[in-house]
Amino acid sequence: MTNKIQVGIIGYGNLGKGAEAAIQQQADMELVAVFSRRGEIEIQDKNAKALHIDEAKDYQGKIDVMILCGGSATDLPDQTPQFTNMFNTVDSFDTHANIPEHFSKVDKVAQESGNISVISVGWDPGMFSMNRVMSEAILAEGNTYTFWGKGLSQGHSDAVRRVEGVKAGVQYTLPSEEVMEQVRQGENPDASKSERHKRECFVVLEAGADAAIVENTIKTMPNYFDEYETAVHFISEEELNENHSNMPHGGFVIHSGATGEEKHNQVIEYSLNLESNPEFTASVLVAYARAAYRLSQEGQQGAKTIYDIGPGYIHPASPAALRKGYL
Amino acid sequence: MTNKIQVGIIGYGNLGKGAEAAIQQQADMELVAVFSRRGEIEIQDKNAKALHIDEAKDYQGKIDVMILCGGSATDLPDQTPQFTNMFNTVDSFDTHANIPEHFSKVDKVAQESGNISVISVGWDPGMFSMNRVMSEAILAEGNTYTFWGKGLSQGHSDAVRRVEGVKAGVQYTLPSEEVMEQVRQGENPDASKSERHKRECFVVLEAGADAAIVENTIKTMPNYFDEYETAVHFISEEELNENHSNMPHGGFVIHSGATGEEKHNQVIEYSLNLESNPEFTASVLVAYARAAYRLSQEGQQGAKTIYDIGPGYIHPASPAALRKGYL
Repeated sequence: MTNKIQVGIIGYGNLGKGAEAAIQQQADMELVAVFSRRGEIEIQDKNAKALHIDEAKDYQGKIDVMILCGGSATDLPDQTPQFTNMFNTVDSFDTHANIPEHFSKVDKVAQESGNISVISVGWDPGMFSMNRVMSEAILAEGNTYTFWGKGLSQGHSDAVRRVEGVKAGVQYTLPSEEVMEQVRQGENPDASKSERHKRECFVVLEAGADAAIVENTIKTMPNYFDEYETAVHFISEEELNENHSNMPHGGFVIHSGATGEEKHNQVIEYSLNLESNPEFTASVLVAYARAAYRLSQEGQQGAKTIYDIGPGYIHPASPAALRKGYL
Repeated sequence: MTNKIQVGIIGYGNLGKGAEAAIQQQADMELVAVFSRRGEIEIQDKNAKALHIDEAKDYQGKIDVMILCGGSATDLPDQTPQFTNMFNTVDSFDTHANIPEHFSKVDKVAQESGNISVISVGWDPGMFSMNRVMSEAILAEGNTYTFWGKGLSQGHSDAVRRVEGVKAGVQYTLPSEEVMEQVRQGENPDASKSERHKRECFVVLEAGADAAIVENTIKTMPNYFDEYETAVHFISEEELNENHSNMPHGGFVIHSGATGEEKHNQVIEYSLNLESNPEFTASVLVAYARAAYRLSQEGQQGAKTIYDIGPGYIHPASPAALRKGYL
């Protein structure tokens, strides 16, 4: 018998693996099982089971919260409603334009089943979204800017690798330091997304490929690179494997506002510098799994987002301990 | 007739003036009256009344939320319970050690009167406290560091001004860039508060005073300066008035944690750079006044802190609009 929160994971890609590792860092949680389409896969936690996704339904009543680690394109639109019918759930649905539709589908199921589902958890959507809203609420006369990076972009890396003559490569998105500094100074620059960011590529050439042609093809690629300041570096395959195999990401939410008669400049800045993007996103999911469990224990139900949940709900300590030790 | 949230202010020092200015920036709020011990003072908002604090009781039912802008030492311990008996309230009680006692006194009154009181709102306690808790919840294996500054310290400025030979002066607290960088690199430095900060004084000498003696007296002052790296600059009275009359403050909450088998370094950083400390604190109070009003409208009652309140409650937009536009 245990008093720990009993957690399950659906999906065992980078995000699912990150969730497993994050659960191990949380003293009040216990992983029951990882469910995947592949079934009996090898997982790290020797006390947990690796099962086929079809077996999840047999774990109703044995799992307090199910962490959904599938992708937003095809998995979560179906899986979140499906599993919220059986469990409290948390997902990282990140197709911004479809969030309202996803929310209302999930909310309907959650209201009917009496479960809690916290959707769109992570850092963007997630912690960045929270900071955009709180900063704007506090400093109503002001502007919020989001900068991404330094970060590995999967889509842009794929685009680089499709260029003829490229054997391997990665692309990083970098925020523009100049524009960030303008924002911090309260200058409210009118900078488009392409002016706020730069792109940097590390490319391994095929034998005999022409570097100048490859560089030009990348820099002029429509939609991906042509509107951006882009740097292309040619490196060896060894260097690529050694220095560019992590999945770093991060970024900045900077809000600059003016208060009082003298229009004092007030700057709120939130930033993330992540060596592993999926492990961080998974860590946020796991913390909000705790909130989902507690809300459910309080008798609440329905779909929620980070906007609806008191920040104390994600921390293991009690409200009284938080007031005493952290406020 | 108006649908705006009807707001009152108790106290008209720097914080009360900041609250008045912040309310004017919020389209869904209206200032009804400022209540102070001095009574008929001059206020900025020509549509609001300036009244004696004893008249506040007559405004029950006419004010949705009362923003308490008194000091933590002597005003708020009495005023927050007193006015929570009549109104929903928000305060910035910041004597960290007494927060649990203050909370339980206010909660008792709030439960009896059926009102909401949000206590200890501002940036520390407040936004900094929230970031400490959320960062630790997400990255359980890690450490949180709080750095203050660059900021004008009232207590230390007073100490400087008491030194013989000092005509006028101010003291700024600065964070140590070196230690901040160690934290960002995941080095988890074992740095005391005095190692994490530096002190910088701008001093106007009395005619005939000995600069070397003044400098030495300041730098060796027990409790205030002796444990800190301290710089003392002598300036003219004109320069002091011109460049050092604002009340800037701010600081950094930096959490560095490790995730996954490879112990990837993950850094969360929240910072404030404020030209006016009281105006910013007041702006946070005003945003949480909106939350207090909404919680009360939902039928909730009792004392709350920022840990208990979903961040969306402080923003004027509806939950659906936040999901669509900000998530």
